[in-house]
Order: sequence, then C-alpha cells, then structure tokens
Amino acid sequence: MSPRITIRDVAARAGVSAGAVSLAFNDRPGLSAPTRERIRAAAIELGWTPHTAAHRLARATPADGTVGLVLARPARQLGLEPFYTEFISGIAGVIAERSGSLLLRLVHDRDRETAVHRAWWKDRRVAGCILVDLTEDDPRIPALARLGMPAVAAGHPGLTDGRAAAVWTDDAAAVEEAVRYLALLGHRRIARVGGDPALGHTAIRTRALERTAADLGLEPARSLPTDFSGRAGARATRDLLASAVDRPTAIIYDNDIMAVAGAAVARELGLHIPGDLSLIAWDDSQLCRLTHPPLSAMSHDVHGFGAQVVRSLYDLIDRRPVTPGPAPTPVLVPRGSSAPPRAA
Amino acid sequence: MSPRITIRDVAARAGVSAGAVSLAFNDRPGLSAPTRERIRAAAIELGWTPHTAAHRLARATPADGTVGLVLARPARQLGLEPFYTEFISGIAGVIAERSGSLLLRLVHDRDRETAVHRAWWKDRRVAGCILVDLTEDDPRIPALARLGMPAVAAGHPGLTDGRAAAVWTDDAAAVEEAVRYLALLGHRRIARVGGDPALGHTAIRTRALERTAADLGLEPARSLPTDFSGRAGARATRDLLASAVDRPTAIIYDNDIMAVAGAAVARELGLHIPGDLSLIAWDDSQLCRLTHPPLSAMSHDVHGFGAQVVRSLYDLIDRRPVTPGPAPTPVLVPRGSSAPPRAA
Repeated sequence: MSPRITIRDVAARAGVSAGAVSLAFNDRPGLSAPTRERIRAAAIELGWTPHTAAHRLARATPADGTVGLVLARPARQLGLEPFYTEFISGIAGVIAERSGSLLLRLVHDRDRETAVHRAWWKDRRVAGCILVDLTEDDPRIPALARLGMPAVAAGHPGLTDGRAAAVWTDDAAAVEEAVRYLALLGHRRIARVGGDPALGHTAIRTRALERTAADLGLEPARSLPTDFSGRAGARATRDLLASAVDRPTAIIYDNDIMAVAGAAVARELGLHIPGDLSLIAWDDSQLCRLTHPPLSAMSHDVHGFGAQVVRSLYDLIDRRPVTPGPAPTPVLVPRGSSAPPRAA
Repeated sequence: MSPRITIRDVAARAGVSAGAVSLAFNDRPGLSAPTRERIRAAAIELGWTPHTAAHRLARATPADGTVGLVLARPARQLGLEPFYTEFISGIAGVIAERSGSLLLRLVHDRDRETAVHRAWWKDRRVAGCILVDLTEDDPRIPALARLGMPAVAAGHPGLTDGRAAAVWTDDAAAVEEAVRYLALLGHRRIARVGGDPALGHTAIRTRALERTAADLGLEPARSLPTDFSGRAGARATRDLLASAVDRPTAIIYDNDIMAVAGAAVARELGLHIPGDLSLIAWDDSQLCRLTHPPLSAMSHDVHGFGAQVVRSLYDLIDRRPVTPGPAPTPVLVPRGSSAPPRAA
C-alpha cells in the first residue's frame, strides 16, 4: 500500500514548495496562473484536498471501522441476486463485530466508482473498501493504489496484478469439477449460461469450460453471455434449447436465479429434468432447494466468503500481516437436476 | 422535528451560560465539579458534543445525502429474508439518484441502535435515518426526536405516536382481505404463522386476524410467533398441523420464506396443497413463483416501498413539505396454493 498523500506529495508532483500548495488552495496571491493550475492538477491526480488534511487531523480513528462497497449494478437486480445479499450479509456481520458500518453505494459505471472511492477517502468516510466484479486490467486497482486507501478485491489475484490484496474462489477448478462430473454421467454436449463477459471471473470460467471440454474430448462447449438476471438466463436457455440437432444435454449456470429460470424454460418446452436436460446451478443459495426437482449446484459459503474478504481488509487497515488467499473452492452438490442423459 | 441541538440548548438544560459549557468542554478552570458534571450530563442527554458543533460548521452539506439504516437482526437471517433485500435495494436506488450512500449497521438490540444514531448524527455521518421493525412504545422514536435527526419510520403511524414521519402499509386491511378470501372459499379454521410478536406490525396483523375471523363467524384464529426464519416457519407449521382434530385448513404466513418452508412441511406430512391445506404467503417475492404449486400471496412492491420511505426522508432533510402516508395496500394474488378445502 502506498502511504497517505500529504501536501508534500502534491508539492513534489507539481514541482513547487508546500507553501505554494497552501497559497493555491487558500486562494492567496503570489502564484502565476499556470503554477496554480499545475498544483490543482497534481492535487486532483493524487486525490488530495486541504479539507481532507484538516479533516484527518480532526479525527484520530478512521471512521470507526466503516467499510465502503460500491456496486455498479441496477438496484432492482441487486435485490434479486442471492449472491450479493449473502455476500453483503457476511460482510455486515463481521463489520458489526467491530462496531463499524457498511457504506453502500450504487453507481452506473466504473469511472463513477473511482470518483466515489476518492471522495470517501478524502472525507475519511471509510477506513477501506471492498472491490467486486473485477475486470481484466481493472482501472480501479491502480486508482486505489494511487489513493493509498486500504482495499481488498473479491476476485482472482491474476486480475489485480499484485497491486491489491485479493480473496477469491478458484472458479477454474470448480468449473472443471462440474464438467468432469457431467462427462462421467455420459454428457457429451455441455453448454453454459454465463455471466457478464466483461467480468474477470466470467472469463476465467469460460476458459476453464472450453479447456476441460477439450481435454475430455467432449464437443466444443458454448457459453452464452447474460447480465446475471433471471430473464437473461431464461432467454439464453431458450437459445441453447432451440436447436433439436445440437441441443446440449446439460447446462451449467453462473448463478442460481438463472438456473431456476432455466428450469422453468425447460419445463415450458416439455423437456424432462434431468432425463432430457441436466442443470447445474452456481452459489447454492436456498433457491436451489426450493425447486422441483431441487437443483444440483456448485456450492460455496457466500456468507463466509464476504466475511473472509472484510477480515482481510481489517488486517490491512490495522497494518497487521494480511493473509489474503483463496476461499474454499465450490464443491459439487448433486441433487435431482442432474443424471445421465436419456439419449446417450 | 426539533431543531438541531446547539451549545445554548445544553446551557439551558444545565442552567448555566453558553460560556460555562465551553469552559467545561475545553477543560478550563472556573467551574465547580458539580456544575461541570451537570453540563456533561445535559450534553449527553441532548446528544451534543463540541466536536459535533465544530464538525457541523466544517461541513456545509450534511454528509452528501447519506442515509443510515440500523438493523437489529442476525446477519445470516438478513441474507435469507427477501423483504429486506428488496427493501434495501429500493432505498439504495433512490439514494443513488442523489449521489448518496446507504450507511448500514447491524446491532444486537435497540439500545445499541439508539447509540449508533447518536454517534452518526454527532459526527454528521448521515443526513437522516430510516427506522424499521417498530415496536409499540418504541424507545427509538423519542430518542430520535430529542436528537433532532431527520427520520422516517417504515411503520404504522399508530406506532410513532405522531413523533416521527411514517410510511406504512395497511397490514390490517391486507389481513382482512386474506381472511375474507379464504372464508369465501369455505375455510372455517384459519391459522397464521406470524412474525416476532414484539413488533408493532405483527401485533396489528394478529388483532386484524382475530377480529375478522370473529366478524365472519369463523373458528377462533390462532397465530403462532416466529423469528421470521424458514426454520421457525417450518416448526410453527408442524405445530399447527400436528392435531388431526382441529387442524387448520388454511394458513397465512407473515413472509414468503416461512410459507415456502411451510409448503415443504405439508408435503412431508403427505398433505396435498391446496386440497388438504391452503397457504397464503406475504410480500410476494420471486420465491412465490418458484415453488410447486406457486404460492398465493399478499403481494406488494417492497422495492417501491423502500423507495417511498427514503423519498419522504429526503423531503424532511431538505425541509420540503413531507408527504408521509400509506404505501399501496398489499393485494391478494391467488395462485395454486389456495382452493376450497376438500373436507368442507
């Protein structure tokens, strides 16, 4: 982690004295317009304001253990996605042990997210933050490193490039287990209803699916992209099942709600689960046990994952040795939605 | 709303001058120990600190529209309760429109909740807060009124005693509709798996159930208490179905997750839904459409309810005329889990 930004850093970046920075920010005379502009640009780049500095002095403890989380997902979707509610409840439980709070913000895009991080850190509204939905070359990682705000990424370390602590689940190993299980049952045409292809973990799963299918000599495995909503999961399932010729006999879903929606589509089309079509859900929230048949799933403790992420963040905040690392890998829980294919 | 607490209020409460309060809080000589003590007691009672006052001066806008929500529920339960995830997503969506954040805190009891409100308000961490899970004679209402923090209660105005703005759903009318519908189908023994009896809305529903059953000449309607969890809902359903003699032919549930759990219990016991037992869920989250048969439910837009609550709070914060009031009353959505009783 880089240390906190001070007036000296701004001065060094602008090539002036600390006194000049002070003049610029107090709107005092004695500086040329270009110098004033250069100082302001340096301060913006470093995320520094004089208000921040004064504020930091005024508050000894950083925001009583409050942790920030920005989500770039639509509000309605947030309420319908079991992963996020479980993840947030896991975070909130650990924060409560420390008498802290979770500062939650919804935004439309990642640029806005970085602006929120900067404002929160300046005003000492949070002691650190949690990053989710990592992309490859995620712009938030270098922005946070520049800011010096403690942050833990819930995502594979390959996506953080060693510039942020990471807690992750081994999605590639989990996909491989799911595909090997389906192959063992006799499935040769396996497809997947994936998530947002811009997200790093979606890409990791896609590559693992294609590689494992090739290793096992199965037919090439298709992955269709979605926005993780039940509606998109239903549409992708219809697309996959539309062809009677190369219709898959098994579908892996990237979350539970899409698997539940997919099961309803299969029934609409008169397909028997699991005889005509095997389904495997992902996350294994309570939804998987409420359907008929109950859904086989790649199961992991999402609540515990959220707790592990925020514990690592508190290690960082408290300057204790951080032990980021993988959370337990999701394990296959076979239920009534997976079986050998009838036609095989 | 009472106005913000100032040093003058503390002085008046302690019966001293504002200067004396300043002396006491700056640890300057010139005051007797009892006077110093009286001033500190007055400040604590009013929730005032000099730090707060300085802080308020330093920040022109109150915490950029950030809204606080304290939940006195276990973290694990939070993730499993569709009501809260929908409610919070509705709140978060409106807050995002205003570029604000939601400050979320889990606590173990209500006393702790009031302490959190006081700390948040002192430090200007929030511009206002939302109250949920109101009890009769809720101690948080007078505490917030003393604090002067803008607050909107998601609960019946009969529970706020006119001392806080309230946004609510007419639970009594909704219960009456559910009972009238079941009576019309021919049910005479109706029971309910209720929520936490300490909560105001649970008590309102219990009274409405008993009154409506009596008005319609039905058998006395039992309500069993729970903690809103699926497990407690299953246990209460087993209790209600244990007797073959006065077994209810219809059960109304206070949320969806308990109704889903109750449906599973009925199937375990070999009871046909809806032939042997009609079920009505409450809230009508997506869960109700994922079961077989899909559950009849008292349906309302929980996401929209959360949005309405926080919009009223922003009216208060911005000193606009507040239009608190009822959200749309839940309406019955009959699905496959309700029908005339076989035995009737």
